[in-house]
Amino acid sequence: MGGDLGPDVTVPAALRALRELDDVELILVGDEATLKEHLKKHSATESKRLRIRHASEIVAMDESPALALRNKKDSSMRVAINLVKSGEAQACVSAGNTGALMATAKFVLKTIRGVDRPAICTALPSLGGHTHILDLGANIDCSASQLFQFAVMGSALAHAVDGGEQPRVGILNVGAEAIKGSPVVKEAGAMLESSDLNYIGFVEGDDIYSDRVDVVVCDGFVGNVLLKTSEGLAKMIYAYLKEEFLRNPLTKLAGLCARPVLKAFLRRIDKRRYNGASLLGLKGVVIKSHGGADEVSFANAIKIARVEARQNIPERIGSQVETLLSQ
Amino acid sequence: MGGDLGPDVTVPAALRALRELDDVELILVGDEATLKEHLKKHSATESKRLRIRHASEIVAMDESPALALRNKKDSSMRVAINLVKSGEAQACVSAGNTGALMATAKFVLKTIRGVDRPAICTALPSLGGHTHILDLGANIDCSASQLFQFAVMGSALAHAVDGGEQPRVGILNVGAEAIKGSPVVKEAGAMLESSDLNYIGFVEGDDIYSDRVDVVVCDGFVGNVLLKTSEGLAKMIYAYLKEEFLRNPLTKLAGLCARPVLKAFLRRIDKRRYNGASLLGLKGVVIKSHGGADEVSFANAIKIARVEARQNIPERIGSQVETLLSQ
Repeated sequence: MGGDLGPDVTVPAALRALRELDDVELILVGDEATLKEHLKKHSATESKRLRIRHASEIVAMDESPALALRNKKDSSMRVAINLVKSGEAQACVSAGNTGALMATAKFVLKTIRGVDRPAICTALPSLGGHTHILDLGANIDCSASQLFQFAVMGSALAHAVDGGEQPRVGILNVGAEAIKGSPVVKEAGAMLESSDLNYIGFVEGDDIYSDRVDVVVCDGFVGNVLLKTSEGLAKMIYAYLKEEFLRNPLTKLAGLCARPVLKAFLRRIDKRRYNGASLLGLKGVVIKSHGGADEVSFANAIKIARVEARQNIPERIGSQVETLLSQ
Repeated sequence: MGGDLGPDVTVPAALRALRELDDVELILVGDEATLKEHLKKHSATESKRLRIRHASEIVAMDESPALALRNKKDSSMRVAINLVKSGEAQACVSAGNTGALMATAKFVLKTIRGVDRPAICTALPSLGGHTHILDLGANIDCSASQLFQFAVMGSALAHAVDGGEQPRVGILNVGAEAIKGSPVVKEAGAMLESSDLNYIGFVEGDDIYSDRVDVVVCDGFVGNVLLKTSEGLAKMIYAYLKEEFLRNPLTKLAGLCARPVLKAFLRRIDKRRYNGASLLGLKGVVIKSHGGADEVSFANAIKIARVEARQNIPERIGSQVETLLSQ
């Protein structure tokens, strides 16, 4: 039911995901009457692959996470996470209030042993394919050992999802030299040096979009700022490009000629293809979709949930952390 | 003499600036023989508007700022800053080692009374024109009162350079709501609320490139990361655009049609037009050019120095800070 647009987006997105992924079953959680109505609007009905689970409440986008957790025991978010806890669902996807989702998921699913606090992780496009980056805002201040845990979790996720060699892990800093940066990143760097992760050292902001690194670790303040800064820059560049092509009849003609190329280009930086952030460190798969996600975006978040459930990401992270704890 | 390319860039850039700005005189500081040779290569000679001041040493790009300050008393950087101190020059422009430039400038010129530490400030393009952002890396950890001082300095700079109304000042945070963020940004926000600056509250990363704010304040770690992240993203987008237009003969033809439009577009996001960061909070104008700057970029940094010298930025900041201190 969540997100800025609710079932107007999540229901058609679910139907799209069912069409595109034939090994997926979905449970829509929320007000039963509303969901049935939305299904009807799209000429769809409940089936073995598409069930409805009633939930009588909704967590508002601006609601306090603590209050939502305490007072809304039958919210769509809470019921969906309960389904993961009970094993009836293998993953939960929500476009709702991030803070409430994290608080509820932590309370219901619990955190993996050895992980102090879960982190939010997403993939961003890069010249090499994509880069996983965490934390994106769950933890404003981080200790060195938290950053270290983020590196372990991000590496496990990247390895499971992308396959291949051990992912290259870097800590985000203001310079590549070991003497640069805050005491926290230096200490985290030293911890990673002596781990068996494929730690490549400090990386800088521009490395995120290069082909140098697979997993970038930072605190949630920095991660949130760089994610939103990137969104803002991409939006500005898009606006400029559009403006130049719409300037006059001649440039419009040029735009017509270049249309297929521009479309191919825009598809490559389409943020909808990257929608779906993982709440890592929990004993279950929880994917956070952007609140303003459209149908394609939300369906993408469902695809990510499917991959993480298939790959048993929480278990993989658990055994990675276990190994490191026993060293 | 500084930067990755030294006089190969700075000398032609100086000649370009002299052609483009007829009210400017330049002093080239560095090894006299080398500079004369470079002038000769460009068929230029010394004149009233273009003088040479000999300096026997060079600070290397990777040299420790403390050692450079202690041991290189006749470096081109030090001699150039001395010229500002003595009043023989109204501004210093350098593409050299940022840390050494900041340390030397602080030592020679001193910090304005009431300013704890100078900050690095640059303008970035935005949908509204441009946004000034500081600190970009001089101060990794900042207290609330330092962030407050950055706001005062950034506001004074923006007002002097852009004219018009009181600039809109925002503190970079992970959410616009007052309850979000670290204790430091919250405290800085409270200090700005009760100041007479045009403080608009917390802003997020995407606001930098929008039309919402004129001055964005953050600590040097966050500022450095967001600047480099933006550079990396712009580079990736450019590479994708190029790749799509060079994919096959047909797309190349489309590229030919769209060429003037693409050029106009690229000009708008050309980072060379934004080269030149101000070291604010010093008793003198010091502009840091990107180390890898080319002729156009470095000439742009000279233009920024000219504007800041004309506008007496250090004096304006001094009197702003004075006013706030006496309140």
